[in-house]
Amino acid sequence: MVLTVAQSPTLAAALHDTAAAIEDALDRLLPKGADAQERLYQAMRYSSMGGGKRLRGFLVVQGSALFNVSPRAALRVAAAVEMLHAYSLIHDDLPAMDDDDMRRGKPSCHKAFDEATAILAGDALQARAFEVLAEPDTHSDPAVRVELVRALAEAAGAHGMAGGQMIDLLAEHERLSEAEITRLQMLKTGRLLTFSAEAGAIMGKAALAQRHALAAYGRDLGLAFQIADDLLDATAEAETVGKATGKDATAGKATLVALLGVERARAQAALLAEQAAAHLDSFEARGDLLKDLVHHVVSRRA
Amino acid sequence: MVLTVAQSPTLAAALHDTAAAIEDALDRLLPKGADAQERLYQAMRYSSMGGGKRLRGFLVVQGSALFNVSPRAALRVAAAVEMLHAYSLIHDDLPAMDDDDMRRGKPSCHKAFDEATAILAGDALQARAFEVLAEPDTHSDPAVRVELVRALAEAAGAHGMAGGQMIDLLAEHERLSEAEITRLQMLKTGRLLTFSAEAGAIMGKAALAQRHALAAYGRDLGLAFQIADDLLDATAEAETVGKATGKDATAGKATLVALLGVERARAQAALLAEQAAAHLDSFEARGDLLKDLVHHVVSRRA
Repeated sequence: MVLTVAQSPTLAAALHDTAAAIEDALDRLLPKGADAQERLYQAMRYSSMGGGKRLRGFLVVQGSALFNVSPRAALRVAAAVEMLHAYSLIHDDLPAMDDDDMRRGKPSCHKAFDEATAILAGDALQARAFEVLAEPDTHSDPAVRVELVRALAEAAGAHGMAGGQMIDLLAEHERLSEAEITRLQMLKTGRLLTFSAEAGAIMGKAALAQRHALAAYGRDLGLAFQIADDLLDATAEAETVGKATGKDATAGKATLVALLGVERARAQAALLAEQAAAHLDSFEARGDLLKDLVHHVVSRRA
Repeated sequence: MVLTVAQSPTLAAALHDTAAAIEDALDRLLPKGADAQERLYQAMRYSSMGGGKRLRGFLVVQGSALFNVSPRAALRVAAAVEMLHAYSLIHDDLPAMDDDDMRRGKPSCHKAFDEATAILAGDALQARAFEVLAEPDTHSDPAVRVELVRALAEAAGAHGMAGGQMIDLLAEHERLSEAEITRLQMLKTGRLLTFSAEAGAIMGKAALAQRHALAAYGRDLGLAFQIADDLLDATAEAETVGKATGKDATAGKATLVALLGVERARAQAALLAEQAAAHLDSFEARGDLLKDLVHHVVSRRA
């Protein structure tokens, strides 16, 4: 297992290597075998593995490197976060939710399998994410493991990701203000990115100020990322992104791009990116890779 | 808060009082308030509160009483288990799964709200269950809290409840053997009942032999309970049960009642009940209430 951490020459190499290491960890940690419920295992693997930018997992791994957490432990937490993210994508894609047929360039889970299997695969991925965090291999200190569970559960639940998706659904036929859209996105994608950024500080038993700096970085990165994602949806071609585009506007989805227009939204993303990077100043050169990531996220084309 | 524990005169009173105390705990622990995602909170409360036998919560509370665990802590764990159970019912009732319009004598979650809200309410209930277990109020020892999380996640996931539901769906058009049906039910309902029965031993840091005795009790109780449930479905009237009956046979669902017939299934349930009670012999008179519960479960009419 080779992990490129903060000392690596380029962000691209670090992203690539970390994604490969997370893929290995998922392969080890997800269920397999010829049980009667093998179809469930297959659906869990189908939607978690073989794709995705692994942005959340990358944050966990790079945040952990700041506190000399063992790469093996960091990869377990990275894999858990990616399982939770994959579950949310499976459920968001369901016909009763956003009704998306494609995800990461291939048929979404309920198209490749069926709706019932997709619902169960999401459910089981959520359970497995918490199980992985709770297992002794994740950290020798049970207080650290249980704080990882608590913080991830908070990020995932009614005051986090699931709550944000609820607001998003309710907002389809309602014009939200800039503040309301920001709150929606904070919950829907921001909380999980925040957890990903601060997980290393939890594992490394960092000072609270350091944990808070990373959490603030994750929060601003998340908001910048969401605007970048919405800009992509509004401007890019479907084949570049690997999923249907232009759907948000058609569905009347609440985005800052729709509210502010492309240029002002782009300026807002740039401002958030500056802010995100500034939270890492106290880490000096060791925070450079995470700073580079911010600019990569805002300027990405897919 | 009044809790009737093992010393109470009658099982009926203990069941009643414990259900009321669990209802209070759910009210305290579930989200509420006028947030933008209030509809999600409402759906979570709608499907968790105001109904149900609270069998799983009762097992947690009575198992905890054997080890002098504080009733307040036991009720938090009981509420978490009931949240997890409620989430599984919400998702099982969805049109893509068992397609049930009624649950606990009222419209199921996706009928009272809508499918998207029901999916999210289940998702958020699962997250909240793990969050409640992980919070410091549940136990002063983080090692205990994280073991509760690990064991519940294992019981809920691909090798437990979700896996059992997958097998159940796959079995709709296939005739299973007695061994296969038993395994299906072990996963689908048995694992969560087993966790409920052993949770008190985890909280009370009991000797492993005691934890295993309670787990074995929970496993056999679960199998007996499932047969009793299937017998009810095959023989009772819809209005007594509070949900549609006779559906299992119509859907070609795999049950021991369908395979063995009513009389042999009844005998099998009685045998499992004997076995379940015997696991509690080492607790002497302190285990009487849990023994009474077994016979109550097998002979229940609704």
